[in-house]
Amino acid sequence: MAEIPTKAREVLEKKAFASVATVNEDGSPQVTTVWVDADEDHIIFNTAKGRLKANNLERDPRVSIAVPDPDNPYEQVTIQGSAKLVTEGAEEHIDYLAKKYMDKDEYPFRQPGEERVIVRVIPEKIGMRG
Amino acid sequence: MAEIPTKAREVLEKKAFASVATVNEDGSPQVTTVWVDADEDHIIFNTAKGRLKANNLERDPRVSIAVPDPDNPYEQVTIQGSAKLVTEGAEEHIDYLAKKYMDKDEYPFRQPGEERVIVRVIPEKIGMRG
Repeated sequence: MAEIPTKAREVLEKKAFASVATVNEDGSPQVTTVWVDADEDHIIFNTAKGRLKANNLERDPRVSIAVPDPDNPYEQVTIQGSAKLVTEGAEEHIDYLAKKYMDKDEYPFRQPGEERVIVRVIPEKIGMRG
Repeated sequence: MAEIPTKAREVLEKKAFASVATVNEDGSPQVTTVWVDADEDHIIFNTAKGRLKANNLERDPRVSIAVPDPDNPYEQVTIQGSAKLVTEGAEEHIDYLAKKYMDKDEYPFRQPGEERVIVRVIPEKIGMRG
């Protein structure tokens, strides 16, 4: 496990958008943009059960993430890591992210029947690149 | 080959940042952020020979791209496609992108000995998602 450098942490604490890449069942890549968060040791995002990215990560936990600094898109945090999916606390966590990014107390994009999932990424490599 | 929808084209013509995902030799995903461009039928970006993404695409041309609308990051163009690498015209093309994104006549980040490559992506699937 790699430690999250201070400069990377500063970017992750901003309203930054993270591009999360996973691998599809046929071996092709898949990428989408998500909100992002970090704790002491993990890079964290939130998705919903049944989404392609959640299904891919359940099959193959390897994940790559790029997070451009919103104040300087020519600096980005890049992460290679391994994802663990957790449903406990995932509804509260998406509300927490809605507060961070939209200053809303509740996530406004919930879909009927949707079950949220926290994706906790253990970074194997993490760094800044220009 | 999928046609590029008008709404996607409008985003690609902006100073939008594209997240490009490829697959590493060991089957893990890889993602970085790049400038983006389009012609009639292709999504186009520019990289340098020997970069991980160029090497990956030479081995496996399958690529996934997400391009958030800079005016509304909750709308993004998503593309699954197949990449073809071309060196002809690649130096002029990175200058063209530097003009689009930085209003500079010459790309200011050239590295000594670097050889630029155009990556032309034939979209198999392309659409907007919120």
